[in-house]
Amino acid sequence: MIRIIAFDADDTLWHNESLFVLSQEKFRNLLLAYQSPDWIDRKLFETEIRNLQHFGYGIKGFTLSMIETAVELSEGRISGREIGMLLDLCKEMLSAPVELLDGVASTIRALAKRHTLILITKGDLFDQESKLARSGLGDCFSHVDVVSEKTSATYQTVISRHGIQPNELLMVGNSMKSDVLPALAAGALAVHIPYHVTWAHEEATAPPESGYTKLEHISSLEQVVQSLEQSKAKSFQIRN
Amino acid sequence: MIRIIAFDADDTLWHNESLFVLSQEKFRNLLLAYQSPDWIDRKLFETEIRNLQHFGYGIKGFTLSMIETAVELSEGRISGREIGMLLDLCKEMLSAPVELLDGVASTIRALAKRHTLILITKGDLFDQESKLARSGLGDCFSHVDVVSEKTSATYQTVISRHGIQPNELLMVGNSMKSDVLPALAAGALAVHIPYHVTWAHEEATAPPESGYTKLEHISSLEQVVQSLEQSKAKSFQIRN
Repeated sequence: MIRIIAFDADDTLWHNESLFVLSQEKFRNLLLAYQSPDWIDRKLFETEIRNLQHFGYGIKGFTLSMIETAVELSEGRISGREIGMLLDLCKEMLSAPVELLDGVASTIRALAKRHTLILITKGDLFDQESKLARSGLGDCFSHVDVVSEKTSATYQTVISRHGIQPNELLMVGNSMKSDVLPALAAGALAVHIPYHVTWAHEEATAPPESGYTKLEHISSLEQVVQSLEQSKAKSFQIRN
Repeated sequence: MIRIIAFDADDTLWHNESLFVLSQEKFRNLLLAYQSPDWIDRKLFETEIRNLQHFGYGIKGFTLSMIETAVELSEGRISGREIGMLLDLCKEMLSAPVELLDGVASTIRALAKRHTLILITKGDLFDQESKLARSGLGDCFSHVDVVSEKTSATYQTVISRHGIQPNELLMVGNSMKSDVLPALAAGALAVHIPYHVTWAHEEATAPPESGYTKLEHISSLEQVVQSLEQSKAKSFQIRN
């Protein structure tokens, strides 16, 4: 049986990347006086990737990367007032309302009645805790793990800490690279629910050939969980 | 008996506040052209406290507060080049060598042989994990909790998650406000080992009248743990 259903948070339960896309648009407009839009986007992405080793994931690191890109692209000509606008953008992002994806609230509440749900999310601890609190779904999750990276070792730790078998964990998320592939590598089951935009860094080169379920929308998840349990029960009967 | 010994990390196991003090000195020197040293310090502290609700604790939030203060104090006249220096300072802080306090390595290794040690630290998840990895002490701790705040509820959660009695937890840390008072309020034992400098925000107005042990240096900790266990065994004998 599926003992634990683990969910990614950003872009699986609530909108997140769209917030970054909007902020990046404002950033681009601010720097248009200095460089072309494509060049601004490319430089910002390069800076973000280079800074991952220092900053990890999250809005504060993104803001520091925006400021660094602004200083570099403007060759130091960026003004204090413009830097102040980037700081305001950071605080706007941090306090933006948590917008649940369509169908999330009802699906999570229904699943929480019969399953143990946990949250496994990357990013900034402070920011993620604040978003979960504001989402109104905090009570549905028996455990929240904010992790610095999602590797197969991350999922193995979850599995062994909860004392379950790998295939008793189902991971649900929008990122092939962080949610699906490493969970499958750890022996867990996985459901992939793509978000309409994906940050380039989260794109995986190739999806696995099988072993996971792809959904258009979270509202089909309850049904998928039931089918997975039935097919597991069936294979158990056959084996025994 | 003491079942779990929990340690704070920054300024308990390794130097941290001294790094902030050094960076703040560089920040002050950078802004001397715009304002007086006292005014710079006061404004930075005010900005940090105001931003705690947005940024939480840690170097990235500190840097964003430095940048905000620089823009405000210079009335927008701060240059891109100077902002770039603050970003460099941020990365220097994030990659600064982890300097263990005197006596920490031997004390932790000795205690780890006979006790379950855990780490309970505030701050930035990514940064704290990186520091623990670089400290060389990662193997001594069976669990690491990076938390956004240290309240008595935080310690209660630790106690119930480990299935122990409150007075089977001993908390060791340098902050009266975050390590000692809330741990005592949760019914745990506490050892206070002050660091030579304390960030104003971590200062507690009044220490408790009793119930905790104050140490000058971590090297006496093993002995204190033994005495605490003996006195608990004694009170157990008397009661029974």
